[in-house]
Amino acid sequence: MKKITERLAGLRGSLKRDSIAAFIIPSTDHHFGEYIQRHFSCREWLSGFTGSAGTLVVTEHKAALWTDSRYFVQARQELLGSGIELMKMRLAGTPTIAEWIKKEVDNGSSVGVDPMLFSKGEFESLSAELYPLKITLKDDPFNEIWSDRPPVTFNKATLQEISLGGSDSKSKLKFVIQKLNIEKDLIYILSSCDDIAWLCNIRGTDIPFNPLLISYAAFTKERIYLFASGEAFSNVEESMLRDSGVELYNYYEFQEFIKGFNRDYIRVAPIDKISVKIFNNSVSAGATFVPDPIRGGVIASLKAVKNSVEIDGFRKAMLYDGVAWVKFWIYLEEELERGSQNLTEEIVANKIGEIRGEFSEYKGESFSPIVAFGENGALPHYSPYGNGPVKIGGDSFLLVDTGAHYPFGTTDTTRTFAIGTLTQEQRRDYTLVLKGMINLSMARFIKGTRGASLDFLARGAVSSAAKIYTHGTGHGIGHNLCVHEGPQSIRMEENPVPLESGMVISNEPAIYEEGSYGIRIENTILCKKWVENKYGEFYEFETLTLVPIDLTPVDRQLLSPEAIQWLNNYHSYIYIKLSDMLNEKEREWLSVKTLNIN
Amino acid sequence: MKKITERLAGLRGSLKRDSIAAFIIPSTDHHFGEYIQRHFSCREWLSGFTGSAGTLVVTEHKAALWTDSRYFVQARQELLGSGIELMKMRLAGTPTIAEWIKKEVDNGSSVGVDPMLFSKGEFESLSAELYPLKITLKDDPFNEIWSDRPPVTFNKATLQEISLGGSDSKSKLKFVIQKLNIEKDLIYILSSCDDIAWLCNIRGTDIPFNPLLISYAAFTKERIYLFASGEAFSNVEESMLRDSGVELYNYYEFQEFIKGFNRDYIRVAPIDKISVKIFNNSVSAGATFVPDPIRGGVIASLKAVKNSVEIDGFRKAMLYDGVAWVKFWIYLEEELERGSQNLTEEIVANKIGEIRGEFSEYKGESFSPIVAFGENGALPHYSPYGNGPVKIGGDSFLLVDTGAHYPFGTTDTTRTFAIGTLTQEQRRDYTLVLKGMINLSMARFIKGTRGASLDFLARGAVSSAAKIYTHGTGHGIGHNLCVHEGPQSIRMEENPVPLESGMVISNEPAIYEEGSYGIRIENTILCKKWVENKYGEFYEFETLTLVPIDLTPVDRQLLSPEAIQWLNNYHSYIYIKLSDMLNEKEREWLSVKTLNIN
Repeated sequence: MKKITERLAGLRGSLKRDSIAAFIIPSTDHHFGEYIQRHFSCREWLSGFTGSAGTLVVTEHKAALWTDSRYFVQARQELLGSGIELMKMRLAGTPTIAEWIKKEVDNGSSVGVDPMLFSKGEFESLSAELYPLKITLKDDPFNEIWSDRPPVTFNKATLQEISLGGSDSKSKLKFVIQKLNIEKDLIYILSSCDDIAWLCNIRGTDIPFNPLLISYAAFTKERIYLFASGEAFSNVEESMLRDSGVELYNYYEFQEFIKGFNRDYIRVAPIDKISVKIFNNSVSAGATFVPDPIRGGVIASLKAVKNSVEIDGFRKAMLYDGVAWVKFWIYLEEELERGSQNLTEEIVANKIGEIRGEFSEYKGESFSPIVAFGENGALPHYSPYGNGPVKIGGDSFLLVDTGAHYPFGTTDTTRTFAIGTLTQEQRRDYTLVLKGMINLSMARFIKGTRGASLDFLARGAVSSAAKIYTHGTGHGIGHNLCVHEGPQSIRMEENPVPLESGMVISNEPAIYEEGSYGIRIENTILCKKWVENKYGEFYEFETLTLVPIDLTPVDRQLLSPEAIQWLNNYHSYIYIKLSDMLNEKEREWLSVKTLNIN
Repeated sequence: MKKITERLAGLRGSLKRDSIAAFIIPSTDHHFGEYIQRHFSCREWLSGFTGSAGTLVVTEHKAALWTDSRYFVQARQELLGSGIELMKMRLAGTPTIAEWIKKEVDNGSSVGVDPMLFSKGEFESLSAELYPLKITLKDDPFNEIWSDRPPVTFNKATLQEISLGGSDSKSKLKFVIQKLNIEKDLIYILSSCDDIAWLCNIRGTDIPFNPLLISYAAFTKERIYLFASGEAFSNVEESMLRDSGVELYNYYEFQEFIKGFNRDYIRVAPIDKISVKIFNNSVSAGATFVPDPIRGGVIASLKAVKNSVEIDGFRKAMLYDGVAWVKFWIYLEEELERGSQNLTEEIVANKIGEIRGEFSEYKGESFSPIVAFGENGALPHYSPYGNGPVKIGGDSFLLVDTGAHYPFGTTDTTRTFAIGTLTQEQRRDYTLVLKGMINLSMARFIKGTRGASLDFLARGAVSSAAKIYTHGTGHGIGHNLCVHEGPQSIRMEENPVPLESGMVISNEPAIYEEGSYGIRIENTILCKKWVENKYGEFYEFETLTLVPIDLTPVDRQLLSPEAIQWLNNYHSYIYIKLSDMLNEKEREWLSVKTLNIN
């Protein structure tokens, strides 16, 4: 822990020179995505806490880390002896960051933040909360104190073909401008790498699990300016980009570009996706800033609605992934049958990747897989890595949540397998989770309906047994992009974005029995047109995922005839779609797994 | 229509003298309730439009009336020849009131409103929308131009006994102050007559359908100031009020009282329930105003949660009303059986009141009843009065929506009866409405759940047939107070108020086939504690209404075994509860109506 103390001392020295009484270090990078490169893991480096979510605040004599319930145990262990106080978010009595700082520092003090790590929106809220304390913008202080800090790395990127994305950048730009519907000349500022990847039809490998390249972009009504590393594209690719309306510039020129751009053009961006630094640069020439009025930004709202080529790509990805799951499940059964003593969560997690690796089109995992046996399954974001070998055996559930990227689509599937003998309660809980998943799958609703209206279809089955899951039921899924994508969701919490035809969403109710077991069943569903009549247009869901559901724990008495029929149809459909891609043995196995129940 | 032209000319003269270019006349009174006395129906008097909802705007040369889809047909007929333009609200292309005014009047003009008819909240929104036009506050101009304007009438009021309301005013005040949790000295301003009736345990007959007296009130942490008419209470009652912490003053002294109250006390009120005039008076002494942060105000939020005495009262009211409905349904069947040619909607509507009138405790209808045969049922707010005689006969549905006030509770029930032979589609629609109603009735959910999360349980059954209903599924119901009561609701639209144990709500999905038929089935449900465990507290609904549901149109194939079981249990329960209160013939009839289906 001496290391941590020294590092904190280094930062404190830097803060003292700038008369900053408290410094806030979030977990993000300059692009506000879900995953970051090591270069940006300053919060982890400084605190020793390795969880993905957390904010560290350092004052002259104290330091405190805010994180959420997923990480309470891990944070307590990792912070032990560091002198850093753990702040359990959303528990009664836990102060907010602003409340804590106001108590710790003198009135009239200054609070420091790195203006590249706070969005304009976050900054505004923080300023209001910290009032009357002032905020000092302090550029990244870690270069001087983190001697072996890894550099930002840029890899080679690729262009996404029209045959995979369905629309070229010129058409997308047209569509974006039309939806924005702003009369004045404008320059729209993009910092989100997935928004940029979608608009420019490019993909990269700079970020773990997200097929993105680190980049900025901007567009006017006429053209797109892309700022990426010199390594990213070949000359041929650069000229292809130019042909599709995308001009390539150096990543590090972006800030000067924005600063110097014609001041008569209004600046537009979603205020939660533009850093304070870039915001300030964008208006430093006296230009006017207009926040994008669309939730999450115009690009996110268009990106969320998949075109027919993307949808067909998803369907294809599900075929591949379905085959991989079949092979995986057979492997699992055989290992368990022969009484393997060496089967661990980590081995199982690696096996899935290995099986997918047999497809030449496989591009990697869409998130870090969750393979959790028994009580580990009760931790919604459990990782099978770094816990030592956890054997799979005895009587409980094995929860497997994994997804893949293919050039034509992204998958995200959870299945929970019965291992050994289950209790009555376990069978009931499993059936209710399944029931909830099916209830949502069968929904039919009028255009304009929000995800929040549908959430209880899944959640209600779980709460009928006086149980809950505290996460959302569904998140948007990108097309060979981020597996967690906005702006739509299916959650208890209000989200004003209505579901639209073409949106791809997860459907994943769950039950977590702390210290005992976890159950989650997750399909990917497509919102699409069902019928249109005098009342309007109605939507329904098509289930894209093609992975059989373990029927051994199902208590049929708890399922309605409609739900049983849905399940039988689903399994029959899986057999029809996958059987041609399987060998004789696998096909026979699948025919048994997909037998109708009644 | 000459009358209307003359009246408009009268108003225009008055506006001209004050240099007002446009005047906005809403449909409300000084207390922002659902129903008003004739004295306040200025919008109706001036326009000739008799609907309950509508806003009239008058400029020097034009006039326009905004109303919603319920009233499009009626408004078109009633405005014919008046020169007043009909503005169909929420249709594409219809300007908002502010948009229209901005187009019609010169920049720099002034828009007039009566400051007693706009809440502070509405006024703020309107000001923003009308900017840069200014608003001129103009006190009620109708006294001088409406020569035979009826006066405001005040009737004798009554005190509500503790045995009916369960809590005295002193205890309520304590509870209110505790929930408000404001440290400073405060005076809270109440304009809503139902908030006042609840706090002071008083009831009146000044307003149609709402058992309220026209009144204002204010309270500090120590006492309640009630402003009512001198006619309202006897000396004995006044002294009883004083004993319970309520000091009585003259209604017309309220504004001066607020103006003159100790300026060191902060003024508190819900900004949507305090008129601009009273708001201005309240701060005219330099006092500080703090809006009540609780949605709808602290009183509404406490009033919505019924205590055990009120809940028992509701149960008793449902017994009475259940008996009335049994007698009514028998009457209806007998009339139809003997082929009565004289059975009209109006006769049927009056019959229900007549039957209830046999109970000495019956206090009147809780809203204007809806009795709608065939295509009339497709109008959600249809009235059986004033359409000439509409005969009930032939093949269709008869929709009956009616409620009553008793000193111990308020009811609101809709039943739809099959008359003659129904089509397959009618049977299906009826069953789906019933299914939706049952789905919501069976919900079990964790504390903190909002009505918006549960709405689709009912709505989804209807949209499964590609149909909709455009109103909410449920509204709060007052205890011998307003039949429509906030702040909770069960609607598609977001409402951040969670359902709480003790809330009484309607459950009324529907299908309206324009020009053909309407189906609505409405029960009153009570949200109450189900179980508590390590996850938290879970709620369920108890159905309070005790009125059998017509089973003849039910297509059992469309109901799940769970729903059928719910229905059978419900009918068995009704029989048990009501049979002792019925005569032999009625009891036998009910035993047939409540037979189990399977």
